[in-house]
Amino acid sequence: MTGEALDFFQDPGSCSLAVRIVLEEGGFAYRAHAVSARDRDRETIGPAWLARNPKGRVPALSPVPGRAGGEAHLLTEAPAILTWLARQRPDLDLMPADPAREARTLEWMNWLSGWVHAVAFAQQWRPERFSADEASYPGIRAKGRSNMLEAFDAIERIMADGRRWAVPDAFTIADAFLIVFYRWGGLVNVDMAQYASWTSLTALTMERASVLTAFRADGLPRLFA
Amino acid sequence: MTGEALDFFQDPGSCSLAVRIVLEEGGFAYRAHAVSARDRDRETIGPAWLARNPKGRVPALSPVPGRAGGEAHLLTEAPAILTWLARQRPDLDLMPADPAREARTLEWMNWLSGWVHAVAFAQQWRPERFSADEASYPGIRAKGRSNMLEAFDAIERIMADGRRWAVPDAFTIADAFLIVFYRWGGLVNVDMAQYASWTSLTALTMERASVLTAFRADGLPRLFA
Repeated sequence: MTGEALDFFQDPGSCSLAVRIVLEEGGFAYRAHAVSARDRDRETIGPAWLARNPKGRVPALSPVPGRAGGEAHLLTEAPAILTWLARQRPDLDLMPADPAREARTLEWMNWLSGWVHAVAFAQQWRPERFSADEASYPGIRAKGRSNMLEAFDAIERIMADGRRWAVPDAFTIADAFLIVFYRWGGLVNVDMAQYASWTSLTALTMERASVLTAFRADGLPRLFA
Repeated sequence: MTGEALDFFQDPGSCSLAVRIVLEEGGFAYRAHAVSARDRDRETIGPAWLARNPKGRVPALSPVPGRAGGEAHLLTEAPAILTWLARQRPDLDLMPADPAREARTLEWMNWLSGWVHAVAFAQQWRPERFSADEASYPGIRAKGRSNMLEAFDAIERIMADGRRWAVPDAFTIADAFLIVFYRWGGLVNVDMAQYASWTSLTALTMERASVLTAFRADGLPRLFA
């Protein structure tokens, strides 16, 4: 890709890793900015970032025409950013042009973003989003863990039909997103090897040059090292 | 639209209303099936529906090629369904062909689906998703209400820039989705008139023939009657 470098706002190891993978996959010129964006309800978020993006989250990407809440030309929400990047490289078909495969890619991303991340993992890592009463946090974390394990079982059931990629049968932005959750499973001490099919697919993803580069740039050890 | 009638699985008044609006907007032939799909953690969900769609949620649409967890050709996740329908009627540009407007539409939908719905409203209506400890439900509901009010303020700030539609300046699937949340605000006793710009936009949406038909088919009184 030629053209103006993109500004990429991220937090190493967060779901912004998926965006970094696609930035690398597409050969985009970009500048990464690590943002202290843990949570609005904690003290760790920077006021400068909140001023630019009232959601206080990452990833975000600029410039993308339009405005929806933050500063002009700042795009938020991982599935939106991944799709926009994919559209700049239609030759790679990272967001499939075929409407049915596109819909399946979005089905993955909406569920991963809005349920597995925003509910199941957030319950474990950000219980303060769900209640102001600290006494309820152990129960919120426990339910988050069961929500996550149920989701992981669902992912394994889908992958076990013999497909090589999340949306058969080519690498899409859904695969870039899925590896984030595989990695997070390890962080919360799930034995990920039990998900044999998902593990095989993740190993394929991990071999891609874009993924290796993105992990290294985020300062993360590669999986299956 | 000609062709085979679609099977549309819905729960009147739920977020499936957005899909019904787009089914009507595009003139699709469809059969609506009301599913008792309140929540997996309650007793109200039907085992027949769970067998077809282990997520146990609505909306769902069939047939759409591919499979991601439920029965073959069943598509789940409102943003994925809305996008797939929009692609069948490219002449209407309900999911914009322009990449930047497409990204803004996805930005709206991911945030509405994965934060405003799956977190803020679910906390109020489905606290059992967040903890097994009933003693924590008042705190979870209270935080859900504050998450919702903060989101509503954000929506109003966006709409107040003079735009006529969520993604300036044409009706998109994001508008079909947004009216669901405006209506829900009333259901939880928020004075929605305080959001002057969002109210104006919603009134425009409510005037569309597709929206009037969808509300009537779901058995809902029209807004601003």
